[in-house]
Amino acid sequence: MELLKDRIIKDGTALSETVLKVDQFLNHQIDPVLMVEIGKEFKTRFEGVKIDKILTLESSGIAPSVMTGLELSVPVVFARKRKSLTLTDGLLTADVYSYTKQETNNIAVAEKFIQPGDNVLIIDDFLANGEAANALIHIVKKAEATVAGVGIVIEKSFQKGGNELREAGYHVESLARIRSLGAGEIKFVDEVKN
Amino acid sequence: MELLKDRIIKDGTALSETVLKVDQFLNHQIDPVLMVEIGKEFKTRFEGVKIDKILTLESSGIAPSVMTGLELSVPVVFARKRKSLTLTDGLLTADVYSYTKQETNNIAVAEKFIQPGDNVLIIDDFLANGEAANALIHIVKKAEATVAGVGIVIEKSFQKGGNELREAGYHVESLARIRSLGAGEIKFVDEVKN
Repeated sequence: MELLKDRIIKDGTALSETVLKVDQFLNHQIDPVLMVEIGKEFKTRFEGVKIDKILTLESSGIAPSVMTGLELSVPVVFARKRKSLTLTDGLLTADVYSYTKQETNNIAVAEKFIQPGDNVLIIDDFLANGEAANALIHIVKKAEATVAGVGIVIEKSFQKGGNELREAGYHVESLARIRSLGAGEIKFVDEVKN
Repeated sequence: MELLKDRIIKDGTALSETVLKVDQFLNHQIDPVLMVEIGKEFKTRFEGVKIDKILTLESSGIAPSVMTGLELSVPVVFARKRKSLTLTDGLLTADVYSYTKQETNNIAVAEKFIQPGDNVLIIDDFLANGEAANALIHIVKKAEATVAGVGIVIEKSFQKGGNELREAGYHVESLARIRSLGAGEIKFVDEVKN
């Protein structure tokens, strides 16, 4: 997705060889117009795939997911990173280790929102080692639902998550695939315009 | 906002005299189409008010804020409940006590996203005692920016937050104002159709 790659080049910052800061438009400040375009792009990428529901993880997955849900006319469910008093029994849970934050979160989704047989599109802002995506897949499977696909805004292709998911047979669509990060330099996997 | 009130009646649950569960469409599962209507309604409610930016709090404030940002053509910033490794210096912070979750969170916004003189519309999903709204106001003031208004999806009018904010002179717009909650019963402040 050229619009996204251009934005990453313009406003993203490679903080190290593994950390890309995109807080200008995706995970702290959000550009709503870019989110609309991301929603449209996911719709195109998953054309012909049966999708009943989108599952994401708070917080940065919410904006792209809601715009995709609008395009696909399906509801969005976001997994919560901790239990609230209004969310107690009937939970589907999984653990997610965040390398960036160096902490493990237990994530939870109310059982009633993922029904057996549902075709669930998983969306997240980043895919690196695949921790979050695998936890969401785990939740979908626990619900006896089907993973319709995995939609990622930015994939760090030099980390293992994307390839592992593809090798496991999942339909993964990443809107921007980073080949490498270095001192102020961001390189993408495919340089062909698409 | 009748559409929202109807949805609260249909899908909301009064868990007690103070807790309203709206996880079917707002804060766990999200209805993207309802969020679009909420965005349009906030635009109408703040017609003529100069707004440069929307400030909200993760996670449930994000969806209504992004749709409002789209309507108003302004970026959305969400305050984070904890610091990440990619978000260290240059922070505006405030403490928020959550009565529902019985915990205090330190919330933070990168200074660069709220500039002196910015006209900031604060949006959140709920207004009860005003803890979150006051913390966001505190952050806007610390940035030497201006609070253009406070937009709330659901106000619990029987709790003190809304009246305190109005008495302090803030322009508060709540799309649904709950007068009382009881055993399976939800009553709104104004029963006049609007």
